[in-house]
Amino acid sequence: MFNPQHIMATAKQNLRILIACDDAKGLVYKFSKIFYHNNLNIDSNQEFVDKNKGRFFMRSVVTGDFESQELERKLREVAPKNAEIQVKVPKKKKIVILVTKESHVLGDTLIRHSAGQLDAEIQAVIGNHLDLSDLVKRFDLPFYHVPTANISRKQHEQKITTIIQSLEHDYVVLAKYMRILSADFVATFAQKIINIHHSFLPAFIGANPYKQAFERGVKIIGATAHFVTSDLDEGPIIAQNIIPVNHRFNWQDMQAAGRDVEKTVLARALNLVLNDRVFICGNKTIVF
Amino acid sequence: MFNPQHIMATAKQNLRILIACDDAKGLVYKFSKIFYHNNLNIDSNQEFVDKNKGRFFMRSVVTGDFESQELERKLREVAPKNAEIQVKVPKKKKIVILVTKESHVLGDTLIRHSAGQLDAEIQAVIGNHLDLSDLVKRFDLPFYHVPTANISRKQHEQKITTIIQSLEHDYVVLAKYMRILSADFVATFAQKIINIHHSFLPAFIGANPYKQAFERGVKIIGATAHFVTSDLDEGPIIAQNIIPVNHRFNWQDMQAAGRDVEKTVLARALNLVLNDRVFICGNKTIVF
Amino acid sequence: MFNPQHIMATAKQNLRILIACDDAKGLVYKFSKIFYHNNLNIDSNQEFVDKNKGRFFMRSVVTGDFESQELERKLREVAPKNAEIQVKVPKKKKIVILVTKESHVLGDTLIRHSAGQLDAEIQAVIGNHLDLSDLVKRFDLPFYHVPTANISRKQHEQKITTIIQSLEHDYVVLAKYMRILSADFVATFAQKIINIHHSFLPAFIGANPYKQAFERGVKIIGATAHFVTSDLDEGPIIAQNIIPVNHRFNWQDMQAAGRDVEKTVLARALNLVLNDRVFICGNKTIVF
Amino acid sequence: MFNPQHIMATAKQNLRILIACDDAKGLVYKFSKIFYHNNLNIDSNQEFVDKNKGRFFMRSVVTGDFESQELERKLREVAPKNAEIQVKVPKKKKIVILVTKESHVLGDTLIRHSAGQLDAEIQAVIGNHLDLSDLVKRFDLPFYHVPTANISRKQHEQKITTIIQSLEHDYVVLAKYMRILSADFVATFAQKIINIHHSFLPAFIGANPYKQAFERGVKIIGATAHFVTSDLDEGPIIAQNIIPVNHRFNWQDMQAAGRDVEKTVLARALNLVLNDRVFICGNKTIVF
Repeated sequence: MFNPQHIMATAKQNLRILIACDDAKGLVYKFSKIFYHNNLNIDSNQEFVDKNKGRFFMRSVVTGDFESQELERKLREVAPKNAEIQVKVPKKKKIVILVTKESHVLGDTLIRHSAGQLDAEIQAVIGNHLDLSDLVKRFDLPFYHVPTANISRKQHEQKITTIIQSLEHDYVVLAKYMRILSADFVATFAQKIINIHHSFLPAFIGANPYKQAFERGVKIIGATAHFVTSDLDEGPIIAQNIIPVNHRFNWQDMQAAGRDVEKTVLARALNLVLNDRVFICGNKTIVF
Repeated sequence: MFNPQHIMATAKQNLRILIACDDAKGLVYKFSKIFYHNNLNIDSNQEFVDKNKGRFFMRSVVTGDFESQELERKLREVAPKNAEIQVKVPKKKKIVILVTKESHVLGDTLIRHSAGQLDAEIQAVIGNHLDLSDLVKRFDLPFYHVPTANISRKQHEQKITTIIQSLEHDYVVLAKYMRILSADFVATFAQKIINIHHSFLPAFIGANPYKQAFERGVKIIGATAHFVTSDLDEGPIIAQNIIPVNHRFNWQDMQAAGRDVEKTVLARALNLVLNDRVFICGNKTIVF
Repeated sequence: MFNPQHIMATAKQNLRILIACDDAKGLVYKFSKIFYHNNLNIDSNQEFVDKNKGRFFMRSVVTGDFESQELERKLREVAPKNAEIQVKVPKKKKIVILVTKESHVLGDTLIRHSAGQLDAEIQAVIGNHLDLSDLVKRFDLPFYHVPTANISRKQHEQKITTIIQSLEHDYVVLAKYMRILSADFVATFAQKIINIHHSFLPAFIGANPYKQAFERGVKIIGATAHFVTSDLDEGPIIAQNIIPVNHRFNWQDMQAAGRDVEKTVLARALNLVLNDRVFICGNKTIVF
Repeated sequence: MFNPQHIMATAKQNLRILIACDDAKGLVYKFSKIFYHNNLNIDSNQEFVDKNKGRFFMRSVVTGDFESQELERKLREVAPKNAEIQVKVPKKKKIVILVTKESHVLGDTLIRHSAGQLDAEIQAVIGNHLDLSDLVKRFDLPFYHVPTANISRKQHEQKITTIIQSLEHDYVVLAKYMRILSADFVATFAQKIINIHHSFLPAFIGANPYKQAFERGVKIIGATAHFVTSDLDEGPIIAQNIIPVNHRFNWQDMQAAGRDVEKTVLARALNLVLNDRVFICGNKTIVF
C-alpha cells in the first residue's frame, strides 16, 4: 500500500514517515535518534506492536529541512531487514472511482472534492452503467462508460484496467460498484482498492444485505469500508459504523437509512487512507 | 409469549392490552370502540401492520374501571378468528436466571433487582458451575447448582426443568449461560427464554465471538438479546447495541469492553419484555 | 406548521391525517370511526398525549377513495374545539435554502435532491455571499445573491423575504446560514424555518461552538436540527446526533468532523418534516 | 494526579512511565534512549504535544529489569526543568466512594470490584444518607454514615475528610454524591476526585439535568465523568456518552434511561484513570 514517493525537498516542511517491520528492541530509540540528529522535530508519533505477529508499526509526522531519499536510507540502515519504510511528503493522492447506478456515495465524494475537503484529486469516474454520467459531468470530471454487454468479465475488467492505468492512480475507490472483481483485477491493484460494503461485515456477506437484514429482523444495520482482496468481503476493514432500525423499516427503508452510513463510513476511511494513517497487516488494518 | 393473566379488578387502574391478529379493516376502530363504551381512557396506543405477513399488532394502555376477563371477551368478539388477545394488569413478572461462570450480566441484574429497577422478581438462579453462588447469596436469593459431570445433557436439562417448573416463572433468562439448549428444553419454555449473545448477530454465530471478531479485525463489536428458539442464535432479536474497538484491542480486551454492552443490552431487552412491549412475529419482534 | 392542503381526489390513494387537539376521552375511537365509515384503511397510526399540556397528537396514514376537504370537515365535527386538523396528500414540498459560505450541508441537500431522495423541490438557494453560487448552478438551480454591504439588517431581510415570497415555499431551510434572523423575519415564516446548529444544543449556544467545545475539552461533539423561533437556538429540536472526539482534535478538526454530523442530522430532520411526521408543541417536537 | 509511587523492583516486570513536560526537541529520542540503554523493552508508547500550551505528554509501558527510582532519576536528567515524571508499577489503586441515595453507580462499581474487574480496592463507602448501607454490607465493605443534620457544611466535610485520610486513597469517587463540595475539600484532594455528572456537560449544568433536558425537549441525553475542581461541573472531562430519547420520555424516564449511561461512563473513566492513562492539562484531559 505504501509505495515510496521520493521527493527532493529542501524547504522546511512536514513529512510523514511510515515504518512497518519485524519487532525488535530499541526501534523507537533508533528511529527517533535519526530524526533528532537530522534536526527533525516530531509533531506526532504513534507506534503499535502486533504481538501475535511480532510486527512493529510506526507513523511519525516530522518537520524540518530534509532530503527524503537520504532520510529513508538512514532509517533503513537501523531497521530490521525487509522493513517497509516510506517517507512521504503530504500531497493530494490521485483516485479513480468505480460506480454502477447508485449516486449517494459518489455524490458525497464529489461534493467533498469540489469543496477541497477530500485529500485527493479525482482523476475519473468509471461506470458500468450510464446513470451517473450526468452527475459526474456537473463537476467537470471525466466519466468513462464501460458497459458489460456482449463482452466477458475478463474483457470488461481489461477495459477498466486500461483506463485506470492510463491515469495517475494511488487508489481505486469502489463507490457502490456492484460487480464482483476477479482475483486478477484485484492483484493488479493490490492494496489500492477500497470498497464500501453495505453491511456490518461479517454480517450479511454477499448480495442485498439490507434484504438479509430485514429478513433476520436485526435492530441495527451498518456499513463497512475495507481494502479489497481476492476473498469477497474479506479484506482488511478500515472503518465501520451503524444505525438503529426497528420493525417499521422494510428493506427499502433500511437501504435508504443505510445510505448515510455508507457514505460517511467511506468518507472516513478515505480520509484515513489519504492521510497515510492506515497500515495493512494481514487481513487487518492498523489505523493511527 | 403472552399467556393471559386474567385478573378480577374493580378499582380504577392501568391495564395493558395486547392484540395480535390477522389484519382486517377497521380494527383500530373496533377495539377503540370497546374501550370507549367501557369507559376506558387510552393512555397510549401503538399499532403496526406487518404487510408481508398480513398481521396486525396493537398495544394499548388504558385506565378505568374494568373487569379484565369480560373486557377480553368483548375484544375477542370483534377480532378476527384466532386473534391472540391479552388483557394484563401491570405487575412484576417472575424470572429464573441461568448462569455459568461470568458474573457481569447476573451482577447487573441483581443490582437492578435489589434497587427495585427491574420489573421482575427473581425466583432463583441456577448455575452449572458453583462460581456465582456467593454473589447470588449476597442478595439473599436461592442458588441451585446443577453440575454437568457424569450425567447426560438430557438428564442435566431435566434437572433444570424440574427446578424451573417448581417455581413461578414468566421468563427464563440466560445471563451468559454457556451451554447449548436442546430443542426439547426450548419447546418446554417456548417464547419464554431470553438470551444475551455476545456478538452483533448474525455476525459471529457460535463459540467465542470475541475471538472471531479479533481475528476478523472488525472495528465495532456488539451484543444481541433475543428469544431462544431451537435454531442456535437464530431466535427473534429484541435489542442490540455496539461499541467501537480498534487494533489495540486483543480479544480479551474486546471481551472486557463487550461486557458493558452485553449487560446493558440484556437489561434493555428485559425492560421491554417485562413491560409487555414485545410481540414475537416469526423470527422477528415488534417492539412498542 | 401544518397549513391545510386541500385536494380534490377521487382515485384510491394515500392520505396523511394530522390531528393536534386538547386531550379528551374517546378521540382515537371517534377519529377511527370516521375512517371506518368512509371506507378508509389505516396503514399506520400513531398517537401521543402530552399529559403535562393535556394535548393529543395523532398521525394516521390511510388508503381509500375520499374527498379530503369533506374528510377534514367530518373529523372536525367530532374533534374538540380549536383542533388543528390537516388532511394531506403526500407530495413534494417546496423549499427555499439560505446559505452563507460553507458548502457541505447545501451540497448534501443538492445531491439528495438530484437523486430524487429528498421529498422536496428546491425552489432556489439564497446566499449572503457568492461562494456557493457555482455549486448551485452545477445543479441547474437558481441562486440569488443578497449581499449585506451598505444595507441595514432590516433591508437585507426584506430582500430575502421578497424573494422567498415570490416563490412557492413550504419550508425555509438554513443550511449553515450564519446570520441571526430578526423576530420579524421569523414571524413571517413562523414554524417554517428549519436550522442546523453546529452543536449539541443546549451546549455551546451562540458563536463558534466548535471553538467552545475545544476549549471546554469535551469528548463528544454534535449537531442539532431545529425549528427557528425568535429565541436564538431555543426553537423546537427535531433531531440531534453526535460523534466522539479526543484531545488530538483541535477546533478545526472538530469542525471538520462535525460537518458529517451536521449534514446527516439536517437530512434526517428534513426527511421527517417533509413526510409530515413532526408536530410542534411549545418548544418541543413530537416526532412520529 | 500522578504522585510518584517509587518501588524497588528487581524481577522482570511491567512499568508505566508517565511524563508531562514543556515541549522541546528530541524528547522521544532522549527518553527512548534511556529505555534502550537500561535494557527496557517498549510495549507501547504514546505521545501528544499540546501545541497551544507547548506541553509534551508521553505514556510508555516498558518491560525489563529495573530500579524504578533510579530510572526516574535518569529520565529527569534529560527532561526539561519542572517535568512531571512518574515511574509506576501497575497495582490496584485504593479508592474511597462517596454516595447519597441512588444505588446504580455504586452497585455497578461493587459488582466490578467483586468480580476483580475494577483495577482498584474499595477502601470504604461514605454516605450522607443511610440508604446504601445495606448494599455495601452485602459486599463486606465498610460503610460510613455521615449525616448532615445539625452540622455545618464545613463540619460535615471535615468528618468525611478525616475518614478518607484515615484510609489509603489514591482517588475519591463521587458515585452520585449529591452535595456540592467546597473549594477547601476539593483542594485537599486535588486531582483525586472523580465525579459522574448526569448530563452531557456543558449542557444542563447544575440541579436536575434530566428535568432540564425534558423541558428543553432534547433528543439525546448523556453523562460526563470528570475530575472535580472548585468550579462546579467545570473540571477536566474524562469520558462522556449519550443515549437517544424522544417525546415519549418524561423526565423520570430520562433519568431511568440515563442510569445506564452514568454507570458505564464512570466505569470507563475509572478504568482509564486506574490504568494511568489520563493526564490532566488545565481544564482538559489527555487520554491515552
